[in-house]
Amino acid sequence: MYSEIHMPKGFKCAGISAGIKPAGVKDMALILSESPASVAGVFTINQVCAAPVKVCRAHLQHGLARAIVMNSGIANACTGSAGMVAAKDMAAETAKVMGCEPQEIFVCSTGKIGPQLPLDKIISGIGTLFDAALIENVQDTADAMMTTDTRPKVSVEELYIEGKPVKIVGFAKGAGMIEPNMATMLSYITTDAAVEQHVLQAALKKAVDQSFNRISIDGDQSTNDTVLALANGASGIKMLDEGSKDWNLFFQALEKVCFELAMMIVHDGEGADKFVTIHVKGANSDVDAELAARAVANSMLNKTAWAGTYPDWGRIMDSVGYSKAKVDEDLVDIFYDETQAVLKGCASDVSQEELIKVVSQSDFAINIDLHIGGGAATVYTCNCTEEYVRINY
Amino acid sequence: MYSEIHMPKGFKCAGISAGIKPAGVKDMALILSESPASVAGVFTINQVCAAPVKVCRAHLQHGLARAIVMNSGIANACTGSAGMVAAKDMAAETAKVMGCEPQEIFVCSTGKIGPQLPLDKIISGIGTLFDAALIENVQDTADAMMTTDTRPKVSVEELYIEGKPVKIVGFAKGAGMIEPNMATMLSYITTDAAVEQHVLQAALKKAVDQSFNRISIDGDQSTNDTVLALANGASGIKMLDEGSKDWNLFFQALEKVCFELAMMIVHDGEGADKFVTIHVKGANSDVDAELAARAVANSMLNKTAWAGTYPDWGRIMDSVGYSKAKVDEDLVDIFYDETQAVLKGCASDVSQEELIKVVSQSDFAINIDLHIGGGAATVYTCNCTEEYVRINY
Repeated sequence: MYSEIHMPKGFKCAGISAGIKPAGVKDMALILSESPASVAGVFTINQVCAAPVKVCRAHLQHGLARAIVMNSGIANACTGSAGMVAAKDMAAETAKVMGCEPQEIFVCSTGKIGPQLPLDKIISGIGTLFDAALIENVQDTADAMMTTDTRPKVSVEELYIEGKPVKIVGFAKGAGMIEPNMATMLSYITTDAAVEQHVLQAALKKAVDQSFNRISIDGDQSTNDTVLALANGASGIKMLDEGSKDWNLFFQALEKVCFELAMMIVHDGEGADKFVTIHVKGANSDVDAELAARAVANSMLNKTAWAGTYPDWGRIMDSVGYSKAKVDEDLVDIFYDETQAVLKGCASDVSQEELIKVVSQSDFAINIDLHIGGGAATVYTCNCTEEYVRINY
Repeated sequence: MYSEIHMPKGFKCAGISAGIKPAGVKDMALILSESPASVAGVFTINQVCAAPVKVCRAHLQHGLARAIVMNSGIANACTGSAGMVAAKDMAAETAKVMGCEPQEIFVCSTGKIGPQLPLDKIISGIGTLFDAALIENVQDTADAMMTTDTRPKVSVEELYIEGKPVKIVGFAKGAGMIEPNMATMLSYITTDAAVEQHVLQAALKKAVDQSFNRISIDGDQSTNDTVLALANGASGIKMLDEGSKDWNLFFQALEKVCFELAMMIVHDGEGADKFVTIHVKGANSDVDAELAARAVANSMLNKTAWAGTYPDWGRIMDSVGYSKAKVDEDLVDIFYDETQAVLKGCASDVSQEELIKVVSQSDFAINIDLHIGGGAATVYTCNCTEEYVRINY
């Protein structure tokens, strides 16, 4: 699927089975840059956060990265001081193999909360990863990141700056605990563009806010969410000037990669088989629009209605009403795609059959106009099926 | 089940089939007081609220009630001006039959949001109800209130004041859209005690906050939530003085009825087969404790874990962490009933088998100590099974 994809210049990557998950299943990945790269990071805002997140936050102060090393299967969250030691050892061992400072190594874990990492397996895995990364392997890397994901997630953008090819390759994993602030998701964005660290940090934050922070699967925020961006300048272009035409081109490509990865995560939501876009306009403010959109996206009654191909707009009215957004029910219009279901807070004259046609699709939109002001927002979500319940048993 | 129960003195009640639901299914109820009763009410805080809620709010200003008339099957929510006319007509017709003012009639509807009430059936139902109420029928009344409830819900308390028997009989319905502010639930509390209106209102609000506002099934607030209390004084006791010993006895009984009804609602949560009490202590404040308890209670990952008899305390840590309560993860202790799963934010040395024993029960508690301050709160919830998804298809 992704075996034809090559990394941006100066990056290598690998994914292996280190024995954390059942035999043969890939569970560790390494992404390395041959030269020090500018690094930016956005993390979970959960007060309970995993040891690797704490280590990444500290290392981000250093500003340069040589590698990301990650494991799936165990989250290294709620693991106390032993967990911190393990996360730091994971960075130190990778630094030793790479011949760099531990602060240049970013560590991530995803999987079950609670258990300690099997450090011997991790350490031996790091050596294997480094050997494997001599040949870049995007497919294996993406595979190794997966937990309940049904498919790996990679997005690629290529552009030309100063006549030279510049590339962005992004990786991501979902697929449960996905809500406002990224939830159990990891994403790594690599590029051979040359970008100063503070510029990359601001750009990543902005791109994440419009992509990973706009998706919701089950309303649960996780302890391990991490998005990292590495820019190593190996394309040979000059340092990008924020606000320049070239910068804008690059930022658009970065946004596109983040957005595409975020959409892949929602499309692969645990047990989900319908992708639903919630668009709210006419709100008192953009913040209000987002509050209303999130309330609709997170309502179990809406999610199960969509699963049942049941166009129950009353549940949408209900969730808009209990959101913290300002709502005047007599003004609300609701459309399923372009088909109007609610006119001024009441049933339109559309037939139930026409609405069923819309919610029968695997991809549709709920468009809501609050008719109060100019605020707008879009949130991307999925339905909730019996399979979601089974997956999380 | 409730056929032996008699109403407090001076109250009658009936439930009939008026043809709103499929033939033969009871769908209208009437509770009447032979003399004007003090009335108190607590309603949904959803900005989208049903016409009958608006009518009840207005009538509450009048301060006296002669009857509650309700229908199930259709919520009369999101029905615009036609819905308001229907709710007012429902009150006016009942007042005509009763020979009282429309402001003394309280109307409620529950069921599907969107459709207009079949007013002809409602009007004819009111006549039938009035005839049926000549013989009080608690069982039929409770039956007629049900929507997705699997069983009717009635609670009775009897006490002696001034040597005279005083009775409280409460009715309730659940069972989905149940969150912070009562959700799709209706409850009617009747008593032959003599209580001034403003005293009854304050007492009801207090009792509701510790009962109906402490339960959560799916995190969805509804458009129709209504709790009404009627006190007609027919027991012959003197007007109760707030703060007196007799008042305290009465208030305890009122609290008990509200609590029992609220617990019946959670036990009958849509598709649920496990009742879970979330108790948080050691929080920065009672408000913080409630925020943390609600986050745990509403997490889909917790609810599905309980459904799968899977004691995943990591998910509890996660949801405590993303709640708006102040949390220091290194201080958190979590117990499944009395069995400690988490000690200072990390796994205790308890075996998974012991925890499975606890979550295998149909009724257990999650006890959380944040070790930050003196705040405490309890929230009552249930698991989320595949059956919940099927019910809401």
